[in-house]
Amino acid sequence: MEANSVEGCCRGRLHWLVAGTQILGLASVIMTGVWLGHYQGGFAWDGTANQFNVHPLCMVIGMVFLYGDAILVYRTLRNEGKTTLKLLHAFIHLIALVAIIVGAVAVFDFHAANNIPDLYSLHSWCGLSIIILFCLQWVMGLAFFLFPGVTYSLRTIYYPFHVYFGLALFILSIGTCLIGITEKLFFSVRDTYSKFDPQGILANTLGLVLVCFGFLVTYILTRNEWKRSASPEEEALSLHFKTLTEEGSPDPVPSQ
Amino acid sequence: MEANSVEGCCRGRLHWLVAGTQILGLASVIMTGVWLGHYQGGFAWDGTANQFNVHPLCMVIGMVFLYGDAILVYRTLRNEGKTTLKLLHAFIHLIALVAIIVGAVAVFDFHAANNIPDLYSLHSWCGLSIIILFCLQWVMGLAFFLFPGVTYSLRTIYYPFHVYFGLALFILSIGTCLIGITEKLFFSVRDTYSKFDPQGILANTLGLVLVCFGFLVTYILTRNEWKRSASPEEEALSLHFKTLTEEGSPDPVPSQ
Repeated sequence: MEANSVEGCCRGRLHWLVAGTQILGLASVIMTGVWLGHYQGGFAWDGTANQFNVHPLCMVIGMVFLYGDAILVYRTLRNEGKTTLKLLHAFIHLIALVAIIVGAVAVFDFHAANNIPDLYSLHSWCGLSIIILFCLQWVMGLAFFLFPGVTYSLRTIYYPFHVYFGLALFILSIGTCLIGITEKLFFSVRDTYSKFDPQGILANTLGLVLVCFGFLVTYILTRNEWKRSASPEEEALSLHFKTLTEEGSPDPVPSQ
Repeated sequence: MEANSVEGCCRGRLHWLVAGTQILGLASVIMTGVWLGHYQGGFAWDGTANQFNVHPLCMVIGMVFLYGDAILVYRTLRNEGKTTLKLLHAFIHLIALVAIIVGAVAVFDFHAANNIPDLYSLHSWCGLSIIILFCLQWVMGLAFFLFPGVTYSLRTIYYPFHVYFGLALFILSIGTCLIGITEKLFFSVRDTYSKFDPQGILANTLGLVLVCFGFLVTYILTRNEWKRSASPEEEALSLHFKTLTEEGSPDPVPSQ
């Protein structure tokens, strides 16, 4: 009874924190839309600065909001089956990847149309590294956790690296957004930024909202009490999979 | 025997990774010194841009290198006694705080001497938040873990928050350095940055070195195999402390 009430209390707190991530995530997307739509001329695909505006919007949607939601599924839907969660995790990351690719093409295309060199800034170096590592992480995740050919022990070895690099790339994505916001402000409101230009205040606040989103997502993910534990059926299936692939003795299954 | 060899192998790997953090940390300090000393006119305390240069150097030393080393002591010197480690952790953070304060005064003083407004940029908003939270974290750490008046259960409740916020602030410090590097480049080499100015390449590389330092420190800290476990004497002392402060039943002691 007491254990149940503790469990109930912690789950309740998890729901509130998850709601907080969604409010912050949506707020960051809306603020990016308002900043670029209202102050920077809106969105288009015509080689002008309006095409550039597609880049930050897609990156905030893909690299931050959807990325965060994809890694949160193991906490938000922790009562669902493991395979369902793996598929959902991979699928949300796939949508995020589409947004990221559109965002990257938007800026390369804008540069090409305006004879601006590519990949000279710290923002672009970090951004390109993230895109490459994100794709690698997605393919490795698919190969290790969704294709049946990989042995149990290989999955167990790779699992902590997948979790660590997934979270590290998510944090670096937010850091890269903060650099991008600063770059854009220095290109567009350099002379009025120090006079507390409303656009500067909006974009700075967007930066803080992104940081808070990152803090909250990583807090939820790193608390032991909300880690998903395998159901008895999954334990049995996992043991069967281990025996099938390695004929070894039973070991604990890594939880997600 | 087998357990010993696994332990030996993991400890060996830890030593290499810690060596890696020190190389990256020192490299970031040297690169900051070379960038500002060679390309930006050097260091002084005279209200000119040379005084501004003190700011990034102090922040990279205090907010990144020393901060990282302070949180690493529980892994690098894991065989030392808990009280020694706590004192060392607090002491390195205190030196870091001195560097941070000098760095902050340098920039406020430079702004005042040149009629530049304070605290309008995203970099400054993040930086000021970190300094306030860093001081709060240091005082809270001192009050909860070094002063004897706090009960065992209060320490146990606060401990995970101290660890989480300590690491989160460390990561945000690195993110804030990346924004600062971008700001400084846009102020000083805006017209040649896109032409792959050597200063731009050096500063971008510094940014990547800081990111790698952050990745490596957080990797070491988040791996379970390198977490410090309490010695039997510490377990007994902790149980005694719990009984003294709460007269409760024995519970596991949080490891650091």
